[in-house]
Amino acid sequence: MADPIPILGGTGALGYGLAVRWARAGLDVVIGSREAARAAEAAGKIRSAVPDASVEGLVNEEAAGRGPIVFLTVPFRNQSETLNNLRGSLTAGQTLVDCTVPLAAAVSGKATRSLGVWQGSAAQQAQEMVPEGVTVVSALHTVGAPTLSDLDATLDEDVLVCGDKKKDKAPVARLIERIDGLRAVNAGPLETARIAEQLTPLLISINVRYKAHAGLKLTGLPAGDPWE
Amino acid sequence: MADPIPILGGTGALGYGLAVRWARAGLDVVIGSREAARAAEAAGKIRSAVPDASVEGLVNEEAAGRGPIVFLTVPFRNQSETLNNLRGSLTAGQTLVDCTVPLAAAVSGKATRSLGVWQGSAAQQAQEMVPEGVTVVSALHTVGAPTLSDLDATLDEDVLVCGDKKKDKAPVARLIERIDGLRAVNAGPLETARIAEQLTPLLISINVRYKAHAGLKLTGLPAGDPWE
Repeated sequence: MADPIPILGGTGALGYGLAVRWARAGLDVVIGSREAARAAEAAGKIRSAVPDASVEGLVNEEAAGRGPIVFLTVPFRNQSETLNNLRGSLTAGQTLVDCTVPLAAAVSGKATRSLGVWQGSAAQQAQEMVPEGVTVVSALHTVGAPTLSDLDATLDEDVLVCGDKKKDKAPVARLIERIDGLRAVNAGPLETARIAEQLTPLLISINVRYKAHAGLKLTGLPAGDPWE
Repeated sequence: MADPIPILGGTGALGYGLAVRWARAGLDVVIGSREAARAAEAAGKIRSAVPDASVEGLVNEEAAGRGPIVFLTVPFRNQSETLNNLRGSLTAGQTLVDCTVPLAAAVSGKATRSLGVWQGSAAQQAQEMVPEGVTVVSALHTVGAPTLSDLDATLDEDVLVCGDKKKDKAPVARLIERIDGLRAVNAGPLETARIAEQLTPLLISINVRYKAHAGLKLTGLPAGDPWE
């Protein structure tokens, strides 16, 4: 039996999109939110989209303990507050997958621009804030929420995964690849998140111009499983 | 008759790769270098690879005047000096395509890391340094020199083009698309170069891990010519 996947901020667009895709793939999902009622509502929405979904909705602090790999999908403006509140909930040995992107929109700027984060990236800021023994991996910056949420849409994209150790990234990659059409690419150490996080404003800039939902793909990578 | 394409720093890996591809596509190429002898040598090498190539080698300052769209392919550590020397050579109405990437390797750091440039990007620094009336466009950060230089290699990549006006980007895009297997994507205004330039260290990080020459591709863009 696979472990449940807590998705903190799972009522937001990206979190919901991941949840509904994993639910369809037969995985257990736990939606986290600041309010239990909103989490339950999102869980209900997923059950409507995927009738046999195994999903529950809890407050973030409770959701965080339900599985070894926890996804954080809150907007950047809520990232630090959420991580503060999670200090008593995350425990050593867990992996936190930070999907936060420091868009300038967090401070009413453009979504095609980003904020500078002192540590270099939102993911590195997260690594500084989590309890000791919790490992941060950064991923899922370039997958569009509208495409994920639309179960009729066919995905054909790569997901960059940044983290200091391959052994921590590999289980995250396996989860990502449970979503049809996504390939997880080992992009390097956690510090590479400062580049990967910039791809969101880049894609937004392109999407505006092309009226599209562009995804990222890398050509020229060898066949075979890089996560073994 | 198409205008010749000056490539300043054309003796370097990226510049040579572009030159040999354009020469094969039947375009006139002018290699620029700090030393006339090295420019002539690179031109000779291109003639060996593409026997009917129309190519000459000149010092940068002379090469810069030979065509309306000038490519700058020097390493970041030489960018400002080269642009200083070009102040009397570039003239209003020309477009300078800056391909510079501020890799930390310029100051003996890692090629998977980048330097902060005060203006935001190497391209924006270039825009500040060129004579009035010269427009800077930023492109070609993600195309690998080894793949370009190997005429037997099949390309299948997108090239991000950043610049403030579509009318300036479109002719650059047309030139890029004269190279088989390259598609030019309108990535936004020149300030977006601060993201596009980061893709080089990202790809280097991935290439190291995969022992590959990865290229970038965007999925989900509509068919049709966005440059019309």
